[in-house]
Amino acid sequence: MNTKKVAFLIHNDFQDDEFRQPYDALCQAGFEVTLLGPESDKTYRGKNLRERATSDLGLDAARPADYQALVIPGGYAPDKLRLVPGIAEFIRHFDQHKKPIAAICHGPQLLITADILRGRTVTCYESIAVDVKNAGANYVDEPVVVDSNLVTSRKPADLAPFCEATIALIKGEKYVPNSSVSTRS
Amino acid sequence: MNTKKVAFLIHNDFQDDEFRQPYDALCQAGFEVTLLGPESDKTYRGKNLRERATSDLGLDAARPADYQALVIPGGYAPDKLRLVPGIAEFIRHFDQHKKPIAAICHGPQLLITADILRGRTVTCYESIAVDVKNAGANYVDEPVVVDSNLVTSRKPADLAPFCEATIALIKGEKYVPNSSVSTRS
Repeated sequence: MNTKKVAFLIHNDFQDDEFRQPYDALCQAGFEVTLLGPESDKTYRGKNLRERATSDLGLDAARPADYQALVIPGGYAPDKLRLVPGIAEFIRHFDQHKKPIAAICHGPQLLITADILRGRTVTCYESIAVDVKNAGANYVDEPVVVDSNLVTSRKPADLAPFCEATIALIKGEKYVPNSSVSTRS
Repeated sequence: MNTKKVAFLIHNDFQDDEFRQPYDALCQAGFEVTLLGPESDKTYRGKNLRERATSDLGLDAARPADYQALVIPGGYAPDKLRLVPGIAEFIRHFDQHKKPIAAICHGPQLLITADILRGRTVTCYESIAVDVKNAGANYVDEPVVVDSNLVTSRKPADLAPFCEATIALIKGEKYVPNSSVSTRS
C-alpha cells in the first residue's frame, strides 16, 4: 500500500484544537503527516498554550511535490506564515495539481496569499470573511465546504466534519456529510 | 480652548507599544482620549502582556459624532474588533465626515471591514498587504502614509512618525516629515 503524505503547516499561535484534532485524525487514517514550519525541528506553541508541535522539516527545505495533500490549521499562525518566503508558491503547487488543500478558521488567509480563491466557494472564520470575498471567493457560512480540491471550515466547533471531509478527499472518496453539512464539488 | 476628543479602539491582544505610545502622545498633546472596547470598564491585555488598558466606554454606547478623530492600534485586537456589532458603521462615520483616522500594523483590517479603502493610498503590516490591496487600496511600503484624513503605518518601529503625523492631522497642521518619510494629501 502506498502511504499518502500530508503536509501540515505550523507556526506559533496556531489554534490548539485545530492542530491536535486534524493531526491525530490524519495519523489514525493511516497518512504520513509531516509538520512544516519556518524552521526544522523547532517547537511552536498553540495560542491557548495547550498544545506544542515540533516541526519535522523547515518550509525552506520542503518540496510540495513530495506531498499529496496540504492541511492548514487556524489561530494566528496563518498571519505569521504569510511572511515565510515562498509560501505562496508552495501552496499554489497543491492547487495547480488539484491536490487536496484543507484550511480552517484563519487558515484561508494563506489561500488569499496564494491567490487561489478567485471563483471558489469557501468558508472561513467570520472576521476574515470580508478578506476572502475581496480575494474573489464566494463565501458561505457553513460548517464545512468542499469545492473541488478545497476543504474549508469556520472554527473549532466545525472540526469533526472538517476532519471527515478532509480525510475523504485525500482518500479519493466521496464525502457524505450529515444533513446539516453542505458540500460542493 | 476646545479640547478635541479622540476615540481609541482596544480589545485583547492589542500590540502593547502601539497602544502605549500613541495613547501617551495624544494625552500629552492635550487631547481627551477615550478608550473604547466591546464592553465598558473592562481591562484588556496586550498581546505581549506588557500593557493593560481599561475601556472608558463600550462600543455599543459610544457615538462616533462625539469624537473628532479615531485611532486604531495593531496586534490581534483588530481581528477581534471586526466582530463587534456596528463597528463598520462606527468607523465609516469618521471617514464620511473627513475626521482623522489613524491605523497602524493590523489596524487597517478594520478599514477593510468598514470598506473605506477603495482608491486610498495606505500602508499596513506586511502580512495583510494583500488584503489591503484586494480591498481596493493603493498599498505602499513606507513608515507613515497620510492620504487626506487617513494616517497609516506598518509596525511598532514606525510609531514615532505615526504619532507625529496623527497629532498634526488632528490639530489641523501640516505634517512635515523627515526626508525618509512620505506623505500624500
